[in-house]
This record gives sequence, structure tokens and C-alpha cells, in this order.
Amino acid sequence: MAENYSQWYNDLVLKADLAEQSPVRGCMVIKPYGFAIWEKMQGALDGMFKETGVQNAYFPLFIPKSFFSREAEHVAGFAKECAVVTHHRLMNDPEGNGIIVDPEAKLEEELIVRPTSETIIWSTYKNWIKSWRDLPILCNQWCNVVRWEMRTRLFLRTSEFLWQEGHTAHATAQEAEEETERMVHVYARFARDHMAMPVIVGRKSPNERFAGALDTLTIEAMMQDGKALQAGTSHFLGQNFAKSFDVKYTDQEGNLQYVWATSWGVSTRLMGALVMAHGDEHGLVLPPKLAPIQVIMVPIFKTDAEHAAILDKMAELKKAIEAEGHTVKIDDRDALRPGFKFAEWELKGVPVRLAIGPRDLKNGTVEVHRRDTLEKQTVALEGIEKSIAALLDDIQKTIYQKAFDFRESRVEKCDDWDEFKEKIQTGKFLLCHWDGTPETEQKIKDETKATIRCIPIDSFVCEEPGKDIYSGKPSDRRVVFAISY
Amino acid sequence: MAENYSQWYNDLVLKADLAEQSPVRGCMVIKPYGFAIWEKMQGALDGMFKETGVQNAYFPLFIPKSFFSREAEHVAGFAKECAVVTHHRLMNDPEGNGIIVDPEAKLEEELIVRPTSETIIWSTYKNWIKSWRDLPILCNQWCNVVRWEMRTRLFLRTSEFLWQEGHTAHATAQEAEEETERMVHVYARFARDHMAMPVIVGRKSPNERFAGALDTLTIEAMMQDGKALQAGTSHFLGQNFAKSFDVKYTDQEGNLQYVWATSWGVSTRLMGALVMAHGDEHGLVLPPKLAPIQVIMVPIFKTDAEHAAILDKMAELKKAIEAEGHTVKIDDRDALRPGFKFAEWELKGVPVRLAIGPRDLKNGTVEVHRRDTLEKQTVALEGIEKSIAALLDDIQKTIYQKAFDFRESRVEKCDDWDEFKEKIQTGKFLLCHWDGTPETEQKIKDETKATIRCIPIDSFVCEEPGKDIYSGKPSDRRVVFAISY
Repeated sequence: MAENYSQWYNDLVLKADLAEQSPVRGCMVIKPYGFAIWEKMQGALDGMFKETGVQNAYFPLFIPKSFFSREAEHVAGFAKECAVVTHHRLMNDPEGNGIIVDPEAKLEEELIVRPTSETIIWSTYKNWIKSWRDLPILCNQWCNVVRWEMRTRLFLRTSEFLWQEGHTAHATAQEAEEETERMVHVYARFARDHMAMPVIVGRKSPNERFAGALDTLTIEAMMQDGKALQAGTSHFLGQNFAKSFDVKYTDQEGNLQYVWATSWGVSTRLMGALVMAHGDEHGLVLPPKLAPIQVIMVPIFKTDAEHAAILDKMAELKKAIEAEGHTVKIDDRDALRPGFKFAEWELKGVPVRLAIGPRDLKNGTVEVHRRDTLEKQTVALEGIEKSIAALLDDIQKTIYQKAFDFRESRVEKCDDWDEFKEKIQTGKFLLCHWDGTPETEQKIKDETKATIRCIPIDSFVCEEPGKDIYSGKPSDRRVVFAISY
Repeated sequence: MAENYSQWYNDLVLKADLAEQSPVRGCMVIKPYGFAIWEKMQGALDGMFKETGVQNAYFPLFIPKSFFSREAEHVAGFAKECAVVTHHRLMNDPEGNGIIVDPEAKLEEELIVRPTSETIIWSTYKNWIKSWRDLPILCNQWCNVVRWEMRTRLFLRTSEFLWQEGHTAHATAQEAEEETERMVHVYARFARDHMAMPVIVGRKSPNERFAGALDTLTIEAMMQDGKALQAGTSHFLGQNFAKSFDVKYTDQEGNLQYVWATSWGVSTRLMGALVMAHGDEHGLVLPPKLAPIQVIMVPIFKTDAEHAAILDKMAELKKAIEAEGHTVKIDDRDALRPGFKFAEWELKGVPVRLAIGPRDLKNGTVEVHRRDTLEKQTVALEGIEKSIAALLDDIQKTIYQKAFDFRESRVEKCDDWDEFKEKIQTGKFLLCHWDGTPETEQKIKDETKATIRCIPIDSFVCEEPGKDIYSGKPSDRRVVFAISY
């Protein structure tokens, strides 16, 4: 892990049965264990969206090329990495070379597999919006998207990925801006409370904005190699898409106005963030709130009689813990030794392991092992279901605190260019002054690979005037520089 | 509805805000209200799958053409209706005609947008299966699929649709056959208990089997025009895909064996079935278990003081009903009259409507209206949350019973060909003898458009010998003929 973080990540995703490369270039298979974690993420996020009044809907996978092209910056941002459907039929090769594309079945207009759905959704909203009474519209969809990628990494960058994309329509700029902020804070809260992952909430510099947005808000997390990972974004789209698709509403005074838009999304990339934020030499470390199995039980025995007695006790215990709302599994696979099972469930990041042997049975005890700290202790079986609940809470908090402390130890102010160049390579978030120009940002990137991850919102430590770390020009606040995934 | 059932269906899907056509040929937009129903279906089915040990996973959207072609019957079944990705980039036309497909970005091998995922999944299972200990594998995925369709109808036949597809791998033919039956019965139970829709469970004739299956089981429902709708299928695939993708396991005796397969799916087509099974002249009739809103409340008032007092009472009532586990909405939109709201919620199929006016407030009563029978009564407010729960149960049962009685009135034995030709056009399920040959089935279809919907499982009324209704040849049991969607 210390030697080659990237290799550690790839190996862990495979070994922990989260995902694997498919035979289709750049597309992954999400395996059942990985998908169960994603389902937990979806469930929590979906509930948080709905609490803000968002409803789910579904829009087409395909976008006609002409729609895709209507917003100029948008198409420029996505045209180089998209999958294009040109035909709708296969046929037997008349020359006997197997199955070929039927040249007769060429589409009149090519279809783009959605890389994001602003264009198809705004062409639909045109029919949904007539009056101020139709606003706001708050829709989200959970779906797959495709962005052709040459270099892919499981979860972090794949040609197809799963995500949710929210698309909202508002009567005023202010409402849309408020929605943009509301949703980035939903993401930050989700990262903190469910993923146990602290994030910095901020604004992207113009260079790093979403194609077609006036403003992009982001949550940025630090991975254990000190690199930044953009974990979710929320965009204020102004009236760009409303103008491209001619979406107007009649306001309360009877005037026609263009509608204001936001969009916001998180993806299966969060799975990569989860692995990299908490994993260790032994494997995954899952926060209890996202763990498909929260408690694993391993029986330890020599005789059949011991085996049977321990399994009986475990079944009873399982019921009691489940009644407290936790997920429990008994690992009763034969032909595998307890040590092997211990290692496997550590690899898979199960927060709590309970082992019961013949002596425990006699003494009315159980061995409790927590994955995050690897601490073990023997405790009384009586009433253990209550202490398990408290332990899971504690693990959730401890994992967060560890990630928080790690990040704090690697965030610092930097006002010297030579120091910057050196420190940024060691995996740090550097809080530096920036003159606000894309040119300076680009030069810093060219020399160090570091980018402005965000201009933090609500961070008092950044709000002080100074001089740009590179150009020396005046700056009225610090921004976060880091090397990113 | 009686005059033009098809038009009634199309209008209702649009008016009730379930779905609409998108600008993309044959692809639909599922609107929030429609999607909320689909989410209820997903939630119930997903839970039922998981109870049988199934886990969710995710496999790529794209299938390389060479994979797709490996199982001969399979490719023959799907090649004529698929979307083919041939390029991965757009560019500005050097001649200034906007955005075009970049001819340099042609894929080496074309990719098919999945119409179903047997091929990509079995190419993956090859790596997951080594020994009998790896079996069974029980995976499901919720996803979108594309089958190019020339004539489309919302929910019933669209080029893109949402579905779930289960794909299981087993050590023996018997286990796979059991799984095939288990899942078709899960579908039948879901249709009955959640959709309030009776179905006939049976076996498809060879003509109607899934491309690549040895056996296809189906659930067939009767719509209110007497036509049949295939609502879900479960396939025993034998070793066809294992052989095409060389998937073998070592059995307990150390011998290499090909793996046995099943696949099974239901789709957003169920939304169409729900509309057509229960809807009436006033709109949708939703079974309470699938209704996104189970209870709608409409205030009736003249003065602001009445309005405020009624809303207070409704808020209190809403809490009490929600505490019983039901979904409640107060329709407090201004500028709309109660009568308009009543009609709208009837159109949307909300099972129970509560109206409170000043007189109710004074008397401590509420007007309770049930959507299925359109009956109204005034009842005491005190303890109403308990009777609402009982009412919702009763509505669920009544809707089922109505659909069941309707179907029973239109299922009959038929042994005369002239009678068959006449009756089948009036919308009936006819139980007839069939000689078991594809030729006879085809001739009957050519002359009447009727097909064998299924050979019922466990139906004693069908199990009697006789003579084929068309050919007169001997038959050992009756099958279900109908005209279908």
C-alpha cells in the first residue's frame, strides 16, 4: 500500500469482489458484493433527495445528434468521448463471414449514448413548463451513462458508469442557485454521515466547470495518498439550456421568461472513494452504514457436537442482533479454517466479527473483533446485541475521525512557490493565493500537475487577502490546490 | 373505453402523467408519477428475489458483436432489432456543416446495446465458476435494454425499456429447472398480491420460446378488452450458453461438466398491464400496494378561517394515517376547485379520497370516497386511521376479485373451429386442444391472429384428452389460445 498505492487499489477492488474489468473496453462488471454497497449508497441518497422534494423519473438513453449539438460549450465538452449509434440491425454476411452490420439499416440521424442528460431533459421540459405554476420541477434519474475513456480504472474512470443526475427548473436565478447549493450540501452530508468521509465544499474555477454551466460546486475528498478526488458536483446552469431548447414560462405578471436550471450528480466513482478513503493493508474498511454485512460470525470447533451447539447459539444471537436493525451473517462454510475466514472478512471490510468457540460457550462469552482498529476483546454474551449497536456507532465515528485527522495533517497554507512544488508532490492539499486567472492556473498545472480543486465555501481560514503563489498578483482569498484523480 | 380501448389506453397513460413519447424514436420518458409506481414494483420484486437468495449486480450495457453471435438461435432472435454502436467520437465538420461523426473514430468491433444480457453475463461467469462450490450463482440486474421496434406503444412496446433480468448458474438440470419454476411463481405471486392481477402460469409452445431457451415459462394476464398480455417470463436455458462460452465446473467427483442456466425478467411493460387490468372510464385504478399516494385529502371551504381550521385538522389526520404506514397527501392547491381536484385524483387512481368541509368539521366527520367502486360515505373522524387501513386492504382485495371475475367470465373451453374463430375475436381465452405441432399453431395464427399463450401448469381443467381444434389430431391436454398484445 505504501509502495504502490495505485496497485493496492486495483488489487483490493478485485480481491474484495467489488468489481472487475469486462471484455468490453473500459466497461466494468460490478460484482454482487460491490453492488450491495452501491445499493446502500443509492438508498441513503435517494431518501435525502426525496426529503428535499425531488422525484425520480426516467429519460431516454439515446440523444439525437442535433439535440446534443445545440448548446455549444456542452457539445464541445462531450463530443470527443461518446458512443455513437449509427445502425439498427445486424445481418448474415452474404459472403459468409458471419454476422455483420446491415448497411441498409443506417439511421437517418445518429444517436449518442447519453454522457449526461441535460439536452434530452430540457427538450422534454419544454413541454412540461408553461406557467410559473409549473415550477419548480425537481427530477432525478438513476441510470447508466457512457463517456468513452482511453485509460480506465475500476470505479474511478470507466467508459460506462452508474450515477444519478438531478435536473431542476426554476423561475428565478436565486432559486436555482439555492438549489445548486442545497444539493452540494446533501452530497457533503452523505459523504460525512454515511461514507464517513470528510469533504471540502467549494466552487470550481472556470477552467474546471461543467461544460455548459455558469457555476460548478463540488465536494473534494482526500484519499490516503494525499491526492484529491472529486466526489460529486452540482451545477448552476443559468438559462443556457432553456435558451438552447426555448423553454420559457409565463410569470405572475404575464411576462414570458426563460427558465433557470441546475444539474447535479454522483456516480459509482464514490465506490472508489470509499475504498481509498478507509482501506488498509488488510483490505476494505467499510463504515457500518454502508456495509452489506455489518456483523460476521465465525464458529470455532473441533467436534460435531461443539459445532452444533455453537451454531445454535449463533442463530439465537443473530436473531437478537437483527432485531436491533443490523445485518448479520453466519459463515458456516465447511472446508475452510477460521483463520482463512477471518482474513476474508477483514479483506471485505465487515465492521464487526464475532467468534465463538467451545470455551466461549462454556463461559457465556464471545470474542468481538472490530475491523477499523483490529482490536479484539472477549465479552459476555448476555445483552451483547445492545453493545453491538453501540460498537457499530463507535466504528462509524472512529472511521470518520481517522479520515478527518489524516486530512487535517495534510492540509496547510503555502505562500512560497518552491515550497509549493515540493510539498504538492508529497500528497497535500495546499491552501494558496491565486490571482483568479485561468492562465496562472494552467501554468501551475503544467509545471506541477496540481489543479485548483475548489474555492472553499464558508472556510474562514481561506478568507484573507494575499499574493498569488505563482504570479505574485493580488488575491483576496486562498483556494485549494492538489493533485487529483 | 368501450369504443376504442387502444385509444383509451394511450390517452390515459398521457393524462395520468405516467409516460410520454420522447423525441427519440420509440423511446419513452417515464414521468415522476409513473416512475413512482415503477419504484413500488421494483421494491416489492427486489425483496421477493432477495428472499430466494438472489443478489443484484451490474453488467455492461454494450455487447461485442462477436459475443452476441456465439449462440446461433439467440443472435437470430435479436439481430433484427438492435442498436449498433460503430464510432466513439464526434467532430466539427471541416466543411462547416455542424457536428458529424468522426470517421477516424470507428470501432474495431461494433458494440450492440444489450437487448438482453445472456451473452455478456455468461462470458463473465466463465471466470467466476471453477468448482461445484461456486454454484449456484444467482444474480439479477435492474437496467435498461434496447430492442429496435418499428411500431411502439408506451410501456407495452418501446425501443428502450427498463427491466430486471435474473441470470442463474447451476450444477444440475434439475436445479436449473426448479429455479425457472421458482421465479415464474415469484412473478405470479407479485402479480396477484401487489398488482391485484390474476395470471395464468404456463409453458410457452416452442414457437414462442425465448431465443436460446429449451423451455420458457410465462405469466399471462387478461386485459379488459379480453386480450392476453405476457407479463413475465422465466427461461430454462439448458447448457446452451455454457457451451457457447465454455463454462464448465468440476463436480464433487472431479469431472468437468457444463453449467446449467436460467434467465427471467419482467419489464416496464407491467406498467401497461396495470393500467389495462384495472383502469376505467374515470382513469387509473391503482391497487393500494402500488399507489404512490394511497390517501388524498381535499379541503372544502369558503372562508379563510374555515380553510385554516380544516388544514389543521387534515395535518393531524395525515400524521395519524402515516403512523399506520400509509402515504397521504393534502391537496391544498389554490385556484383549483374541489371538483377539479376530485377528478384529477380519480384520473390518477388514488385509492382513497378524504374530503373535509365546514360541516364535517363541526360534526367531527369526514367524507370517504373509494376509487375502485366510486362509493362515498360520511364517517366519524375519531379513529379513522384504523378504518383507513382496513379500507385499503379491502380495496386491494376487491380490485383483484373484480379482475379475477372478469377473466373467469371470459375463459371457456372450445372444441369447435367455427365457434373458435368467432369467439376469439370477441376477446376471450379459449381452452382448446392442440396437436402439439408448430404447423398447426402457425395456421391458427394466420387465420385468426390467435396464438397459444401458454400450456398451463397445474390446471386440472386443461388436463383431459381430446382432438386438436384445427387439425383434429389427438391431444392430451388443452392449452390457452388468445389474441395478445
